[in-house]
Amino acid sequence: MIIASTSTIYGGKYLEYLLPTLKSFFKEAKTILFIPYARPSGITYDTYTAIAQEAFGSIGIDVKGIHEFKNAKEAIKNAEGIFTGGGNTFELVNQLYKNDVLETLKEVLEQGTPYLGTSAGSNICGVNMKNTNDMPIVYPPSFKTLGCISFNINAHYLDPIEGNTHMGETRETRIKEFHAFNETPVLGLREGSWLEVNANNISLKGNYTARLFEKDKKPVELELGKIAII
Amino acid sequence: MIIASTSTIYGGKYLEYLLPTLKSFFKEAKTILFIPYARPSGITYDTYTAIAQEAFGSIGIDVKGIHEFKNAKEAIKNAEGIFTGGGNTFELVNQLYKNDVLETLKEVLEQGTPYLGTSAGSNICGVNMKNTNDMPIVYPPSFKTLGCISFNINAHYLDPIEGNTHMGETRETRIKEFHAFNETPVLGLREGSWLEVNANNISLKGNYTARLFEKDKKPVELELGKIAII
Repeated sequence: MIIASTSTIYGGKYLEYLLPTLKSFFKEAKTILFIPYARPSGITYDTYTAIAQEAFGSIGIDVKGIHEFKNAKEAIKNAEGIFTGGGNTFELVNQLYKNDVLETLKEVLEQGTPYLGTSAGSNICGVNMKNTNDMPIVYPPSFKTLGCISFNINAHYLDPIEGNTHMGETRETRIKEFHAFNETPVLGLREGSWLEVNANNISLKGNYTARLFEKDKKPVELELGKIAII
Repeated sequence: MIIASTSTIYGGKYLEYLLPTLKSFFKEAKTILFIPYARPSGITYDTYTAIAQEAFGSIGIDVKGIHEFKNAKEAIKNAEGIFTGGGNTFELVNQLYKNDVLETLKEVLEQGTPYLGTSAGSNICGVNMKNTNDMPIVYPPSFKTLGCISFNINAHYLDPIEGNTHMGETRETRIKEFHAFNETPVLGLREGSWLEVNANNISLKGNYTARLFEKDKKPVELELGKIAII
């Protein structure tokens, strides 16, 4: 699995910074299945799938949206690779439940189907979606997600901005609030960084260290390379 | 009702900028009931109530936390005034449901009990909590809230920051996503502004215009003074 903080880094095109990695990661796949449920800015599944197609097309891979299949579960089972794009995590999780594909997705990922998640598509790899930054624009049946990793992801992790006069909570404050009610560790992944997960081996790749938050502990910075989170 | 974007403005003390307004608004009240359920940074109900007491004490008003009463519903019915503080909207709404006080609170507010909400305490005045900026650290039984006004509040409304290189969605993008799935108008209230609601009259007060978002319409800035939102 590749679990990326963001699809797009500042000044770059969609998925551009990840393409060299994706070319080798999806080398066995001619076509990958795209899950467009998160609908960034409310765009349609077709529009979103075309955006994914444009990026993957440039490395010779075809993209087919899960909505183009009559049977979504079969589509997941038969996929050579899967990509869940970012957008709104609440709507993504809502649709994973409504289409009843969460368990199937977990099964194929555990059996080794290569998976790319960006942003909301990365949040769902964790135990639950309780560390999303998104607005709760729809009410999903549950916040429980794939649990393919033993911790949660905070995508687009943002360091406090010095001299900021806005009184809304910093990301760190929000994650501390989470730990007043929950035990699950949270990894703050900065834009431009991603995780590569292979069975129980997890490596941090990309441009930045990541910030690990554990209940009742001081946050720590994890260096690039192999990481261990219990 | 006073529905404020924030409890605290940059450089000020807790509730300080609102105290002159609150002194006249709560002039009939010797004691107000405080709802500390939102627990900012996970602080205890007692600690949070002490913070509210310190601010209200300076204008000669006593504060009692709802958790100090055996019967929360009775406490709400008998209150001379009510204040719901900010923090995490998910946990606030969760506790309003768990303590089964949402309906009672709505009833007394409609009967005219003076109410102050700040941040999360303002979000709950709207139709639902789907425009909170908070992290979903707990799963409430529903997102439905008081509906004392016919629209939703986005507290701590933040304009897009020019030259920002972070790729997370702007507040405006998030609210547009909301309108891909919902009809309810949303009022973005900037820190330092608040609404005064008296039956069907609503006035915008404080330092800034507010930004009104309606489905399929261009957002508009509402000037200070009486406002009309259908």
